[in-house]
Amino acid sequence: MTTSPAALADRPLDVVVFDAATLVNPTEPGPDGVAWPRQGARRLVAALASRGVAVHVPPAIDRPDAADALARHLSDAGFPAGALTVATPADGGTARRTLVVTRRPDPDPPAALVGAPVLVCGDRPVHRAVFGWLADEAGPFAAAALLAGPPDARAAAAARDHHLRLTKPPGSLGRLEDIGALLAGIAGTSPPPLPRPAAVAVFAGDHGVHSQGVSPWPQEVTAQMVGNLLDGGAAINVLARQAGADVAVVDVGVATPLDPRRGLVDANVRRGTADLTVGPAMTRDEAGRALDAGAAAALRLVAGGAACLVTGDMGIANTTPSAALVASLTDLPATEVTGRGTGIDDDLLTRKTALVAAAAARARYAHGDDALAVLAEVGGLEHAALAGLVVAAAALQVPVIVDGVIAAAALLVASRLVPGVEACVIAGHRSVEPGSSAVLDALGLDPVIDLDLRLGEGTGAALALPVVEAAVRVLREMATFDEAGVSDKR
Amino acid sequence: MTTSPAALADRPLDVVVFDAATLVNPTEPGPDGVAWPRQGARRLVAALASRGVAVHVPPAIDRPDAADALARHLSDAGFPAGALTVATPADGGTARRTLVVTRRPDPDPPAALVGAPVLVCGDRPVHRAVFGWLADEAGPFAAAALLAGPPDARAAAAARDHHLRLTKPPGSLGRLEDIGALLAGIAGTSPPPLPRPAAVAVFAGDHGVHSQGVSPWPQEVTAQMVGNLLDGGAAINVLARQAGADVAVVDVGVATPLDPRRGLVDANVRRGTADLTVGPAMTRDEAGRALDAGAAAALRLVAGGAACLVTGDMGIANTTPSAALVASLTDLPATEVTGRGTGIDDDLLTRKTALVAAAAARARYAHGDDALAVLAEVGGLEHAALAGLVVAAAALQVPVIVDGVIAAAALLVASRLVPGVEACVIAGHRSVEPGSSAVLDALGLDPVIDLDLRLGEGTGAALALPVVEAAVRVLREMATFDEAGVSDKR
Repeated sequence: MTTSPAALADRPLDVVVFDAATLVNPTEPGPDGVAWPRQGARRLVAALASRGVAVHVPPAIDRPDAADALARHLSDAGFPAGALTVATPADGGTARRTLVVTRRPDPDPPAALVGAPVLVCGDRPVHRAVFGWLADEAGPFAAAALLAGPPDARAAAAARDHHLRLTKPPGSLGRLEDIGALLAGIAGTSPPPLPRPAAVAVFAGDHGVHSQGVSPWPQEVTAQMVGNLLDGGAAINVLARQAGADVAVVDVGVATPLDPRRGLVDANVRRGTADLTVGPAMTRDEAGRALDAGAAAALRLVAGGAACLVTGDMGIANTTPSAALVASLTDLPATEVTGRGTGIDDDLLTRKTALVAAAAARARYAHGDDALAVLAEVGGLEHAALAGLVVAAAALQVPVIVDGVIAAAALLVASRLVPGVEACVIAGHRSVEPGSSAVLDALGLDPVIDLDLRLGEGTGAALALPVVEAAVRVLREMATFDEAGVSDKR
Repeated sequence: MTTSPAALADRPLDVVVFDAATLVNPTEPGPDGVAWPRQGARRLVAALASRGVAVHVPPAIDRPDAADALARHLSDAGFPAGALTVATPADGGTARRTLVVTRRPDPDPPAALVGAPVLVCGDRPVHRAVFGWLADEAGPFAAAALLAGPPDARAAAAARDHHLRLTKPPGSLGRLEDIGALLAGIAGTSPPPLPRPAAVAVFAGDHGVHSQGVSPWPQEVTAQMVGNLLDGGAAINVLARQAGADVAVVDVGVATPLDPRRGLVDANVRRGTADLTVGPAMTRDEAGRALDAGAAAALRLVAGGAACLVTGDMGIANTTPSAALVASLTDLPATEVTGRGTGIDDDLLTRKTALVAAAAARARYAHGDDALAVLAEVGGLEHAALAGLVVAAAALQVPVIVDGVIAAAALLVASRLVPGVEACVIAGHRSVEPGSSAVLDALGLDPVIDLDLRLGEGTGAALALPVVEAAVRVLREMATFDEAGVSDKR
């Protein structure tokens, strides 16, 4: 995963020093007889290294001669040799921004590290401990952006190898095998954990562009539908219940003040965006706060036990900023990315398309490749939050299933802010809305479900959840040729 | 649904006389205030009428003047006016093959009906009682073919109307709405019942064409995989468990004698087909017995509580007869319907295609549109059983989810034997195998899942099951605009 200039500018760490026991567990050998890497450690180290952060692993203080053995050990456990240095950094605690991560408090740290902040991760997975610490230091989105590394190639390959041993013709489960390997890569282990329980995060926001008449629905429907979501009566509630997923509703930008209710998270950044056809929808700072709200929601849901995230959205008129974001960030003409949303006639589609074209032209002229500025110029608060959620999911090493055009536009923003993050998501479905296909094509993603949906809320992604679970269960539960006594191909 | 000549030839009934209480329950008014039709009654009557069976409903013996009121009552309950006659048939018990269906034993039947067989259906759904009786009289497949009528248009329309009241833009759930309406049509009621529990019926058979080297797998793998299926280690076991479905394994044509085991149904018709490249794969009688085995399996599974059936198959080399059936029954060239099956190289594909082309040409020349003869000439025993299952599901008014190319070829056979039966199935998935798409196109079906699978066993259809369930849950559980206090479109 390469690094975008925007994210590099405020890299919040230069050096991380890991106590070896945070990365490998020498008492639990893995399947190949070498020490088992601790949950999350391998992808965490790869992410840091890919972002130019120096990773050091000091040898045990009582065995300074064992540095070579430790390096071999880490290499055997799948840590890429170039990603980490087995030594205590000479300038660790002083010259650059350094974090020391240990499993247990170290009463006698190396002198070079005295003064550097120490994170004791205990039994928590190391990547989540680091994310939590960094979120407090630098904000949830900045932390997520630093820690969202590429999927783990070794785990993905192990999943593909295992598929060859299962009682079926090689490759015959098609895309289910790809999804299984992807989930192994995301979790950094094969077979990957079940994506259960899952949580749908529905971010709700309003849009100033509604005043241009781009939707046949009154704006108050956003708030009314938040009520329906909290009452369990919306489509996503039905599909999530069936799939065993919880629905969290996050007010990130609803125009109407909402009464506090159980299940509703108040992360309102502003009461609806400004009209994107006449000026910026929001400020850069507001966009950043909405990115944080999304990343924080991911952190909270995963801390609460979610093993898979599903993107959801609610916001009357939000297909217009979606189309504007896609047009701005892909250079596709507005006619190819603007659709009928909840159902508008030809005249209104023509008008909507013209508004999208003008806004996208303005955003491209003013901001070029500055994705954060483009997001602020023509996006929505729920788009920003969804982008934050997607990046945080990658950092948390949990799969995130991306819904239709709103989430696709958000994913496009995320992939511009944190290039490569699109490799850590599952494209849940292809929406009827043309911006959905435009983003899938632009990012090289194949959707799981393609059933002409155009509802949003996370419904398409929720329908993909059982397929994603099936991909994991196949890896975990199917018999191998040896186990079943079945003859292999001649 | 029109009637095929083959099925007409042995229509096992000419007249059915229903006691009014078997069709409507006058003490339970429906949502529109009229008597609620009893479960299954409306589709049963429509099926019989579509097959030219005369349906009579005698007025109550103590109120012979109430015939007009009863006719209105039945019409209000959705029974098509032309489908039934409110009167006792003058020649009922004597002139033609007549069945009398009553809810309770009738101590004083009309004189014209004395001598006709009487079926007392009690509290059983009337269509299942009739199917059970007729299966005993005429065989399970003949019974199924007579009772497999078209989906209930009134229930399907009610589902579509209800969708317009749910809190979402009209039509925004796309194909999920179509599936919901289809299931309402199949069940004859809206909302339709949940397709739970579901049952996967895996029919296993061997193929003489294996000796031509069309598969890289040894033939004994069929029997070995039956063991794996019974042990719960095959892919379909994993997917069915996840979806809450049972797996029933039916030996309809395995070459090796199998030891009796819990979960294995012995319905073996012959120990593998003959080589279809040198002569008929089986006799017409054997094909008929396999059709019966499939219909009987459906009857047994539904009697055991299954609310949805899923087609499954296991048989090394069975993509070759599938391709031969599709080529024979569609007139498509063998090159367009023959695929790599479990994975063969170019040379073998060329040889397999040539064998398919020759067999299909022979079948078409010898048998033309006689689908039963074509099935016997180039099909497999599991294809016949699957065709029986599909037709029986339509008669039993339960949805059946059709898997990949084996099931598609079987569905094509079923649709030729009982034209219109394809309107009562859900196409579970599109297989990589080209015969799958050929049948979907020929029958105008859109698959639910399209994930490049080519495993068989029912795996693609099992992946569609949660989507089918979701289509039903949406109709049953989503809030309406009124209930949720959400404003409708302007």
